[in-house]
Amino acid sequence: MPDQMQHITLASRPTGAPTPDNFALETGPVPTPGAGEILVRVHYMSLDPYMRGRMDGGKSYAAATPVGATMEGGGVGEVIASNSDRFQPGDFAFGGFGWATHAVADAKLCRKVDPNAAPLTTSLGMLGMPGFTGWYGLHKLGRPQPGETLVVAAATGPVGSMVGQLAKAMGLRTIGIAGGADKCAMAVDRFGFDACLDHRAHSDAKSLRAALNGAAPDGIDIYFENVGGKVLEAVIPLMNAHGRIPLCGMISWYNAGGLGAGAEAAMSVPALWRTILVQHLNVQGFIISNHWDQMPAFLADVAPRVANGEIKVVEDIVQGLENAPGAFMGLLEGRNTGKLIVKLI
Amino acid sequence: MPDQMQHITLASRPTGAPTPDNFALETGPVPTPGAGEILVRVHYMSLDPYMRGRMDGGKSYAAATPVGATMEGGGVGEVIASNSDRFQPGDFAFGGFGWATHAVADAKLCRKVDPNAAPLTTSLGMLGMPGFTGWYGLHKLGRPQPGETLVVAAATGPVGSMVGQLAKAMGLRTIGIAGGADKCAMAVDRFGFDACLDHRAHSDAKSLRAALNGAAPDGIDIYFENVGGKVLEAVIPLMNAHGRIPLCGMISWYNAGGLGAGAEAAMSVPALWRTILVQHLNVQGFIISNHWDQMPAFLADVAPRVANGEIKVVEDIVQGLENAPGAFMGLLEGRNTGKLIVKLI
Repeated sequence: MPDQMQHITLASRPTGAPTPDNFALETGPVPTPGAGEILVRVHYMSLDPYMRGRMDGGKSYAAATPVGATMEGGGVGEVIASNSDRFQPGDFAFGGFGWATHAVADAKLCRKVDPNAAPLTTSLGMLGMPGFTGWYGLHKLGRPQPGETLVVAAATGPVGSMVGQLAKAMGLRTIGIAGGADKCAMAVDRFGFDACLDHRAHSDAKSLRAALNGAAPDGIDIYFENVGGKVLEAVIPLMNAHGRIPLCGMISWYNAGGLGAGAEAAMSVPALWRTILVQHLNVQGFIISNHWDQMPAFLADVAPRVANGEIKVVEDIVQGLENAPGAFMGLLEGRNTGKLIVKLI
Repeated sequence: MPDQMQHITLASRPTGAPTPDNFALETGPVPTPGAGEILVRVHYMSLDPYMRGRMDGGKSYAAATPVGATMEGGGVGEVIASNSDRFQPGDFAFGGFGWATHAVADAKLCRKVDPNAAPLTTSLGMLGMPGFTGWYGLHKLGRPQPGETLVVAAATGPVGSMVGQLAKAMGLRTIGIAGGADKCAMAVDRFGFDACLDHRAHSDAKSLRAALNGAAPDGIDIYFENVGGKVLEAVIPLMNAHGRIPLCGMISWYNAGGLGAGAEAAMSVPALWRTILVQHLNVQGFIISNHWDQMPAFLADVAPRVANGEIKVVEDIVQGLENAPGAFMGLLEGRNTGKLIVKLI
């Protein structure tokens, strides 16, 4: 067993987009598990947009990461020591192991993962929190009906590609939005979207809206909201009566420094509110961690469809903990393609 | 039977708040009912905030009133001629009779009203569209639970006073917002609100929020939204997790001229969106005319409680059609107290 591990701490809080000096790669002793705990050697760690929120000091649905503490996040790895009946050494576990090569965690808060059932990495993406977010938001809040039209951005990411594939299988018209021609081609060719629009090709919401109007001639019934910004402003006036907006994120505003400067929207609150009223829209914010009770239902539905290839998985795997900050900064700018994962072994 | 009637037409579209020259009082022949129609002598007509929206030319959930046409609105009156089996002369009918002393209407679109069961005026207010709006929004969208805290503005109006009284009877803490000390006293003393705040005593949302914070020490679970503006901005940061916002109106912005200048909010769309996300709020726009199927259930629940005095009714009755424009302009500025009605006989 090694006696040293590496981890990445929050060195300082970012102002706007994170920079390399917000992160510090540190070395320390491998911790010893206490009663009920396991020690895990992390094989893969997840990078997700929500982590940007934890770097700020303000109030959110989860406590901010203290400066100097290890960056938070989910990972999957091998149990190398256990003080719990739930895990034996050699088992694989998913848990909140942070940005670290090794971690001690409460066994009750970890989930056993079968490395033979599906690639380990899928437990971080399509069969993990992001895929579950897409499944829950679409089915429980989006109330999709065949023949309706759905729009989702970050269409090649794990949330967007899950939403698009599930909706398409139900007979909806699916319109993705992604950054760049390559991602748009992937959204259509690999994930089966009926159309995908490149938001980088449109300098403002009005231009993007005109393109969306062409791609969604019958209007939009479900806007699965994970980006905010220009896409939100383009979509709102195209929403059909009784439309649904499951709201799980707003990545385009995450770097806006507490939603002050840089987080302005051309659309006003009154204009947004008026559309919600006159089109009788439903907007439902949700945080997937409130809904873990539905995780078994999600896995029962989706895991077989991932295994048989019906639901496609695209992953973007970066090697080495030291490259996590750069990969994360790229994620916030849309530079990854597919679910972003850091390989630590 | 008279051969002349009076009605008020939309003389011109307002820019901002309506002015007297936007309305014209006209005299013309009493119309003759066609097949399936009834002729009604209107006893009482309703004035409601939604009418402001019909005066604008823009797209909304209902078509704009054409310039030169009679102002739209609900009324109740005596059937004086009938070409329908549904009504006999001498019956009383509620229908969309407009701002007029007499009207012809399709009998199928009118509802028979029993003048002995409750005062005729209640069919325009607490037992009509406004009361039904409060009942439907609270029960079907607000999902109230005993012990929760509810906020509603225009607390002495027919929607707000219905919402407050129903919620109080269910064991919620009810906080009203109204304009002026007299209305606030009425909200507490007559309608049973636990507290009522005078929005005129607070020059900005921040000040109003501080007062709300004191009145709602456990936060706000349901914000029944009918006003927008300063109240909305004060409330949003105080919403508890999983809060509900039934959204049926935004009167504070109705005079803002298409929601351009004058409709600005200090709160940005990103800040609003972020709160909906992190507090997992549900915002549901609704237009009560989509839900008439629930009207019998509403009347079965509420009519007996109005009759036995459990649910209090306050009406503000103005005499004479010629005074309707002035009363309506006052409604948009909150000068009425209780349900505003024009008596035409």
